[in-house]
Amino acid sequence: MTKNAIILFSGDFDKSMAAMIIANGAAAMGNEVTIFFTFWGLNLLRKPEKVNVKKPFMEKMFGSMMPRGPGEAKLSKMTWATGMMKKTMKKKNVMELQALMEQARAMGVRFIACTMSMDVMGMRKEELIDGLDYAGVATYIGAADESTITLFI
Amino acid sequence: MTKNAIILFSGDFDKSMAAMIIANGAAAMGNEVTIFFTFWGLNLLRKPEKVNVKKPFMEKMFGSMMPRGPGEAKLSKMTWATGMMKKTMKKKNVMELQALMEQARAMGVRFIACTMSMDVMGMRKEELIDGLDYAGVATYIGAADESTITLFI
Amino acid sequence: MTKNAIILFSGDFDKSMAAMIIANGAAAMGNEVTIFFTFWGLNLLRKPEKVNVKKPFMEKMFGSMMPRGPGEAKLSKMTWATGMMKKTMKKKNVMELQALMEQARAMGVRFIACTMSMDVMGMRKEELIDGLDYAGVATYIGAADESTITLFI
Repeated sequence: MTKNAIILFSGDFDKSMAAMIIANGAAAMGNEVTIFFTFWGLNLLRKPEKVNVKKPFMEKMFGSMMPRGPGEAKLSKMTWATGMMKKTMKKKNVMELQALMEQARAMGVRFIACTMSMDVMGMRKEELIDGLDYAGVATYIGAADESTITLFI
Repeated sequence: MTKNAIILFSGDFDKSMAAMIIANGAAAMGNEVTIFFTFWGLNLLRKPEKVNVKKPFMEKMFGSMMPRGPGEAKLSKMTWATGMMKKTMKKKNVMELQALMEQARAMGVRFIACTMSMDVMGMRKEELIDGLDYAGVATYIGAADESTITLFI
Repeated sequence: MTKNAIILFSGDFDKSMAAMIIANGAAAMGNEVTIFFTFWGLNLLRKPEKVNVKKPFMEKMFGSMMPRGPGEAKLSKMTWATGMMKKTMKKKNVMELQALMEQARAMGVRFIACTMSMDVMGMRKEELIDGLDYAGVATYIGAADESTITLFI
């Protein structure tokens, strides 16, 4: 089976849209797609509500300044135009980022949260959405070595 | 034939230079190279002059704030140094971005404008340079699945 | 032997960490890994001290505004939080960027400095760390065409 491996490092709205559109397109063509969420990409996996977990002050502060879930993601450029872009997308009937993520998972795209990044970003499993896999770099290399498409987004 | 598939998501001057240098290098070695221009990457394909097309106010405004063609592209970092960098490149006899794009096409590199991105960015075919292919994500997946090199730039 | 080819275009702290973690993970699994340092990525290869070389004023100024080595690299987002992130990493016993780079080379990861980028960024061999390879785009294409994983970071 044709495999594809995407690293989603950036949690930016536009780059995450691109990643999901590629993943869903590949899954629709029958490919086995894995997305590895690392660093800022983990923000896409956060639950939209604040989750009470015990953590050091620095990690708490850091977490409070990063977007919680796809709804809070911003454009990588012209950040101020994020709302405008989202409105345009709605008018053009482009699926929302959150819906694209749900579609991806419904189509069998595997979401892996990078455990090392979680540690460094101070994120706990309770703060992320359900149904994720958790793994490290070895899992990524294993999957990517067998993949036709490997992207760092 | 060895194939390479590049997604040019960023329209930044430095990243676009890198994409074109890779594409031209690969084409010179006999590879079949395809570049998919998505999101900000589409700005590279815009004609330098303003084209009169009817579109909603928001799309017009958005379009007016983005660079028209390679001549207006800026560095991804230290934006203010773009002119300085271009001067240095000229002195070192590095081909200009515009010339690299022309060379790429002369060498058979296929330029594909992502139609979904065009829709979202409010860009019409009349505003883009001639001789492009237009396609969506399925075309990209098809090409990339057969490619040795797949990059997201 | 399974080969992997990474272009490190960005010299940002977080992206460079990701590149090194991937490279070291792949090397640990027995892969032959090559990293091509281009544009801002070259900053990671600079010696931390100022090296006296004769160069035009513009190149000197440009050089003085860019980070010298991994110790001066900054986050790609929330730049102000770089120190905080480094402290968190230390507390979690994540290897430092400099140490990851040394580990990579000890494990046989090949570091190639892109000569064209060096020319454009005004960098001389004397300013970069020892033991590097120097090559251009053809070397990259040759290695990447034979690689299972190709990333642009």
